[in-house]
Amino acid sequence: MSIFTKIIEGEIPCYKVAEDDNYIAFLDINPNAKGHTLVVPKKEENKLFDLSKEEYLSLMDFSYRVAEALEKAVSCKRVCMSVIGLEVPHVHVHLVPTNAMADMQFNQKVKLTNEEFVALAASILSKFE
Amino acid sequence: MSIFTKIIEGEIPCYKVAEDDNYIAFLDINPNAKGHTLVVPKKEENKLFDLSKEEYLSLMDFSYRVAEALEKAVSCKRVCMSVIGLEVPHVHVHLVPTNAMADMQFNQKVKLTNEEFVALAASILSKFE
Repeated sequence: MSIFTKIIEGEIPCYKVAEDDNYIAFLDINPNAKGHTLVVPKKEENKLFDLSKEEYLSLMDFSYRVAEALEKAVSCKRVCMSVIGLEVPHVHVHLVPTNAMADMQFNQKVKLTNEEFVALAASILSKFE
Repeated sequence: MSIFTKIIEGEIPCYKVAEDDNYIAFLDINPNAKGHTLVVPKKEENKLFDLSKEEYLSLMDFSYRVAEALEKAVSCKRVCMSVIGLEVPHVHVHLVPTNAMADMQFNQKVKLTNEEFVALAASILSKFE
């Protein structure tokens, strides 16, 4: 069971920003930049392109809606997207409010307090449609 | 006119791996890893999430088909995807055959000869469906 499935099943808490029957989005707790969000299908699959095209497009559709909420809630030049997945073998879309290339290189991290994470997640969730 | 529009209009050559009426995919000439491909909508738009959801999902659909061809043509652990766009203000999806995190951090580049680019593009194109 992946760490993301443990989050989906409530065994591990998360700062949730969106959810429906098939997907969940929550804040990355070791973010590249403020608002860095992971979008995860509840069905555990390792690789993005091992999803059927229908499952993949459905995940991308949900990610678009999360990105729109992020753009409303977090000031940035643009929301960028990345799907890598070498560390956790459960598909996840990184959505990162980005101001500079360093925000997308995964070697610079920002620290937020629990209170900041809670307020940020609530703000994004309130914009999610 | 963006450098990608110049490529689309044939003013600048490229190593093309896929094309239809709305999208083109070609090899990045300064690749993170062998097979690094850019998928570009012919309609010039700056930001991914400024595309309508229909345009975005259509671009993602085309990207999925290119990724499948890449997986058949280039040996790697997985094909990763990234949309950043801070440098060229014309939406482009990076698809990178990836073996290590460094392949997705955009600060390590590999060199290929013209002959290697030509052979690689032909190989990917032959797998594109």
